[in-house]
Amino acid sequence: MKNFASRTEGIEVSLIRRMTLWAKEEKGVNFALGQGIPSFSLPKEIKEKLCRAIIELPQLNKYSCGLGDLALRRKIASVLRKLYQVKIDFKKEILVTSGAISGTFSTILALIEKGDEVIIFCPAYSSHIEQIKLAGGKPVFVPFLEEKNWRPDFSALEKAISLKTKAILFSNPSNPTGFVFSKKDIEKIIKIARKHDLFIISDETYDFLTYKKKFWSLLSFKNARERSIVCFSFSKKYAMTGFRVGFLVAPFSLLKEIYKVFDEAYICAPTISQYSALLSLQIFGGKPPSQFQKEFEKKRKYTLLRLEKLKSFFQFIPPEGAYYVFPKVNFKKLNLKKIPLSLEKKVEKKMKTVSSRFQTNDLKLSLLLLFGAKVVTIPGIAFGPLGENHLRISFGGEIDQIKEAFDRIEKFLLKIKK
Amino acid sequence: MKNFASRTEGIEVSLIRRMTLWAKEEKGVNFALGQGIPSFSLPKEIKEKLCRAIIELPQLNKYSCGLGDLALRRKIASVLRKLYQVKIDFKKEILVTSGAISGTFSTILALIEKGDEVIIFCPAYSSHIEQIKLAGGKPVFVPFLEEKNWRPDFSALEKAISLKTKAILFSNPSNPTGFVFSKKDIEKIIKIARKHDLFIISDETYDFLTYKKKFWSLLSFKNARERSIVCFSFSKKYAMTGFRVGFLVAPFSLLKEIYKVFDEAYICAPTISQYSALLSLQIFGGKPPSQFQKEFEKKRKYTLLRLEKLKSFFQFIPPEGAYYVFPKVNFKKLNLKKIPLSLEKKVEKKMKTVSSRFQTNDLKLSLLLLFGAKVVTIPGIAFGPLGENHLRISFGGEIDQIKEAFDRIEKFLLKIKK
Repeated sequence: MKNFASRTEGIEVSLIRRMTLWAKEEKGVNFALGQGIPSFSLPKEIKEKLCRAIIELPQLNKYSCGLGDLALRRKIASVLRKLYQVKIDFKKEILVTSGAISGTFSTILALIEKGDEVIIFCPAYSSHIEQIKLAGGKPVFVPFLEEKNWRPDFSALEKAISLKTKAILFSNPSNPTGFVFSKKDIEKIIKIARKHDLFIISDETYDFLTYKKKFWSLLSFKNARERSIVCFSFSKKYAMTGFRVGFLVAPFSLLKEIYKVFDEAYICAPTISQYSALLSLQIFGGKPPSQFQKEFEKKRKYTLLRLEKLKSFFQFIPPEGAYYVFPKVNFKKLNLKKIPLSLEKKVEKKMKTVSSRFQTNDLKLSLLLLFGAKVVTIPGIAFGPLGENHLRISFGGEIDQIKEAFDRIEKFLLKIKK
Repeated sequence: MKNFASRTEGIEVSLIRRMTLWAKEEKGVNFALGQGIPSFSLPKEIKEKLCRAIIELPQLNKYSCGLGDLALRRKIASVLRKLYQVKIDFKKEILVTSGAISGTFSTILALIEKGDEVIIFCPAYSSHIEQIKLAGGKPVFVPFLEEKNWRPDFSALEKAISLKTKAILFSNPSNPTGFVFSKKDIEKIIKIARKHDLFIISDETYDFLTYKKKFWSLLSFKNARERSIVCFSFSKKYAMTGFRVGFLVAPFSLLKEIYKVFDEAYICAPTISQYSALLSLQIFGGKPPSQFQKEFEKKRKYTLLRLEKLKSFFQFIPPEGAYYVFPKVNFKKLNLKKIPLSLEKKVEKKMKTVSSRFQTNDLKLSLLLLFGAKVVTIPGIAFGPLGENHLRISFGGEIDQIKEAFDRIEKFLLKIKK
């Protein structure tokens, strides 16, 4: 048979999804700390109105306008005006996407090609890295510094720029580190982007979720608008991960190129999901349901408490935003050889199915926890080379499930500690 | 500002979507003959069960497994076994996609790269052509022969193959010509594909809709399975265009590469849509609701009758499948200059917004019909160079809307006839 395109050679299905797939093959697994899915139900108000619309609205089963339903785009613009005091032309500067991932995907394919470099703060959301590679570009990693509470190494940023650099990409709040960029941080990025004429792509999926620290959207910075592509999501804010709906904001000159890619890959975001998104904005006005924020605070507190108890194994920075914590594993305290042969074999078998760049100790530990403790965690290497030796722990799950997961992990780690 | 990626330079948003967008800027437009949207409501049985599920099922708002919900994949395999007597491993050979378009998109990005050629029967579905270009490949057009009732020119097929050819791509039933490939036609394609070791990508979105002619899925041909990627959709069969859900079937060795692209672009198909798809298969067993077929037959008959009345302007082949007819325009009978200056100017203004390859007489006529008669049609050039001088007429709309649209067209054409 003929070869595949070389573009898929270097990329892999995200370890986030692979861990989930592997976990689904097992029985009795606790998923609470794994893939970033809020455990909440869809808010009741949305459910009820959505059902009425399914029965009554004749257009809900049909394609929407390719750029997105006009009423939704209008509402998005009005919400953004309220949240960030920005004026967005809803007819030309908003593209309703199929989740934030399709926003970054379409953007990267429209902007990046072979030979281009994209600066990305690392550890970074796994798909951002792979999307750059899929487009033929090279991700250039600038570290988040763990010793500085995950603040990016801005001195490394300027040094990382070459003539080939085309864009700076980051998620804010950051997945997986939980770092939230301050106003000054973003101003620094903008200054550098302007100096070197770079695009800035910001994934603001977790915009609603910071703990005490103020969130600054890239949209708020007028002097960056001409070069900014800001991707938003309804997935986490309204417990709609399965609905696949989000949006991006960009100047029309960029958006029209991005829309070309989007059109050929998606046609439009799901209409029923767009309607749910419109409902969510009408009901909650761009803020999350009030109990979500409270619940996340409770879950964060509990998770950090449990990690604190395991501090000989895990060193961690309390996240400023999102619902992840990204502890560094103290492998010196663990004896990974102190496990039954059958478990060892099972883990080794899975390790061999991923490319060598992923065959790290943290993947091994994640697999041990999956098969040995029946708990899903995401290995740090999923988030790029600078994620190695970490685990990503989501606290999006139910609190009793989080408790159960930590009980299992604790028990397992005590068995293999040195 | 820095350049965009060159991959979007040569591509354009489908004229199908652009015509729709332009039409939405106008008042009082009749959309019946435009974008291929069945006018049916979502079947009542699906609506009711879907609403119950939205209220009751806790998983419906969350990401599904990346390859697709397991129950849905299992059901798809069982339906395919019944329809085509094929045995599909639902765990490894099915990927639930976000509409057929994401199936062909992910496939083409996984297989095609710069320098590769893809044979495509033309006139062809617009997005297939652009997807090939987006991947860096070159579409090589093999004509459907109008004088032979749109049967492909098989002698040209073999001649079109070069050392760079990697795949043959077609939709069956064909959009826009309505041609349905016979068993022998497909056997011919397979023979050539095997001889030259080519992939075969078949888009079977309209599999359920043929008029008297038997439909043969590429899946039925065992000797092609190793090289076949077959993309299906729930959009048209169950009036779910807005749900964005379909699936593809391919050998695992191909599917795992295609899934890499899919994962980075989509994560998963919308869960709520997957559940609707599962309901549709449970209720209708892979066949369309019985009234759909009858309605389409009625609409087809009526549409052809109306076209027959306009035969001095339109020469057409009755479609064997799908719900499109692709008449050739007899421009000699029309005086495109016999229009008011204000209309002329409006049309010219839109013409200038598309690339030169689209600035054809059929686009001009489509725009005249849009602005002059308030009716959407799709210009033939949308479907590749061999589509020029044609219009695509959908008969997916309501029959009274189709009637109204033809009344308007008739009136307008009589005004500008020579």
